[in-house]
Amino acid sequence: MSSTNKHTLEPEDTLNGAGRYDPNFTSHVISAMGPKTDPRLRKVMTSLIRHVHDFAREVDLTVDEWMAGVDMINRAGQMSNNRRNEGQLLCDVIGLESLVDEITFKQASEAKDAVTQSAILGPFFRHDAPLRQMGETISFDTPADAEVTYMHGVVMDATTKLPVENAEIDIWQASTNGLYEQQDDKQQEHNLRGKFRTGKDGEYGFYCIRPTPYPVPDDGPAGELLGMLDRHPFRPAHIHLIVIKQGYKPITTQIFDADSKYLDNDSVFAVKDSLVVKFEERQGDEKAKLELKYDILLAATE
Amino acid sequence: MSSTNKHTLEPEDTLNGAGRYDPNFTSHVISAMGPKTDPRLRKVMTSLIRHVHDFAREVDLTVDEWMAGVDMINRAGQMSNNRRNEGQLLCDVIGLESLVDEITFKQASEAKDAVTQSAILGPFFRHDAPLRQMGETISFDTPADAEVTYMHGVVMDATTKLPVENAEIDIWQASTNGLYEQQDDKQQEHNLRGKFRTGKDGEYGFYCIRPTPYPVPDDGPAGELLGMLDRHPFRPAHIHLIVIKQGYKPITTQIFDADSKYLDNDSVFAVKDSLVVKFEERQGDEKAKLELKYDILLAATE
Repeated sequence: MSSTNKHTLEPEDTLNGAGRYDPNFTSHVISAMGPKTDPRLRKVMTSLIRHVHDFAREVDLTVDEWMAGVDMINRAGQMSNNRRNEGQLLCDVIGLESLVDEITFKQASEAKDAVTQSAILGPFFRHDAPLRQMGETISFDTPADAEVTYMHGVVMDATTKLPVENAEIDIWQASTNGLYEQQDDKQQEHNLRGKFRTGKDGEYGFYCIRPTPYPVPDDGPAGELLGMLDRHPFRPAHIHLIVIKQGYKPITTQIFDADSKYLDNDSVFAVKDSLVVKFEERQGDEKAKLELKYDILLAATE
Repeated sequence: MSSTNKHTLEPEDTLNGAGRYDPNFTSHVISAMGPKTDPRLRKVMTSLIRHVHDFAREVDLTVDEWMAGVDMINRAGQMSNNRRNEGQLLCDVIGLESLVDEITFKQASEAKDAVTQSAILGPFFRHDAPLRQMGETISFDTPADAEVTYMHGVVMDATTKLPVENAEIDIWQASTNGLYEQQDDKQQEHNLRGKFRTGKDGEYGFYCIRPTPYPVPDDGPAGELLGMLDRHPFRPAHIHLIVIKQGYKPITTQIFDADSKYLDNDSVFAVKDSLVVKFEERQGDEKAKLELKYDILLAATE
């Protein structure tokens, strides 16, 4: 039957040949990309289209189910602004941010130079944290339920184990109410964040608070999804840090309190065993109840 | 090394064991779903998470690339409203709507009853199109560049080939400027749409216009994506129709003009060969230059 003189609509007209679904459909969509498509974008979109189509066929996704997903995405966009990224959070609760973090770090660690390395920052990093003096605190108006901690250690060359001087450590953490300073009018500017530079001995040290678990914002589509998946919104207690030194690969990571709840079921799946640390009792320091010794090894870029 | 007394951050700490990336990560995310998750949702999300993660690993998706996607999704939501669904359009240009249409239709055609069938309507369907008399026109204030067409045919039982009386045909199409009446202040309410019911002979017939190609809205993220993929935004000329009759499976489809541009590269991938029809010269009818004879076979539900 010619395709150009078909004058009858038959019941099977929206069905297709060989397989359960049209076996050529996906390659048809992929081949629509024109010759001027950027090669990397072509690679990414080819894989994305293939996996999205395979997903739809694998679960026999219906129009109603797909439209529910579209609605969720549109509402995520509508509630996003400079202070909130609900699209990102939707990705986070299905583990995508944590996965691309891993991928990006791995890519960077395999690169011969540091230029291609991408910083993995999370939504609450600020570029303008103040440089503080070694031994100072990052906690101001410290809440009564906070356990003050002295965090310290040595930054070393991963190969030689020699101390690295003038390495910059950028630290940020949420307060005991689960909020970062830019989310919380009651915290002063730059509370619980700061930069420190190591001395000749590679040592760093400052006062902070023991981190506490907190929920990701759950009043939007990401929270709805968590609810439908019978999951809680909490993240285990963690501290963010970036360590930078010219000639070394930068490190961006989070460290997790070994005694925290939710280590095994972080709502955004960022915990790795090697990043779990133990807070110890601190002796002879009236300013801190706890201490955390944490050494940092940097890999040279050449 | 125990996971709870690790006090050194080493360069390989965000890398993982066996494979290039953590081989257990995806199953960890999937297993986070709680016991109260709806079984169908669990099936859908398990497949979605697996395919999204496989996609990210397959192309080594970076944080920057992922964030560009998040930004596109957030902006799609922000420009969506009651008259525009940019999230849907983003799906359309990667073929997802057309694919879930096919899946839903196939599911419905395999169902033993009509109750589970889902209507595939597209964004411009209206439930309240007026019932018109057989032989009337759906085109008012017909533009000068329109080619008036008499569309007609017989609705038959797919098995017996006997005429089906009182079948309802719901038709809608865009004007020659590419706009449906609800997108265009210059078209009167319900222009180029209407419902018709077949008589005893199963026949239907009405005047409409030959459809013309038009672009999907390309001033948002979907248009950006089309541009980056070196693709045009045009859809080939088509007419939408739904045919409903108690005791038969409803049909929702689009038919395409065989002489239209873009048949081989519909921007939303809805063309199927069997839905391509040929408009012919009409003789002896001063009201129409063209005619389209189109018979419709309905499958009984029992």
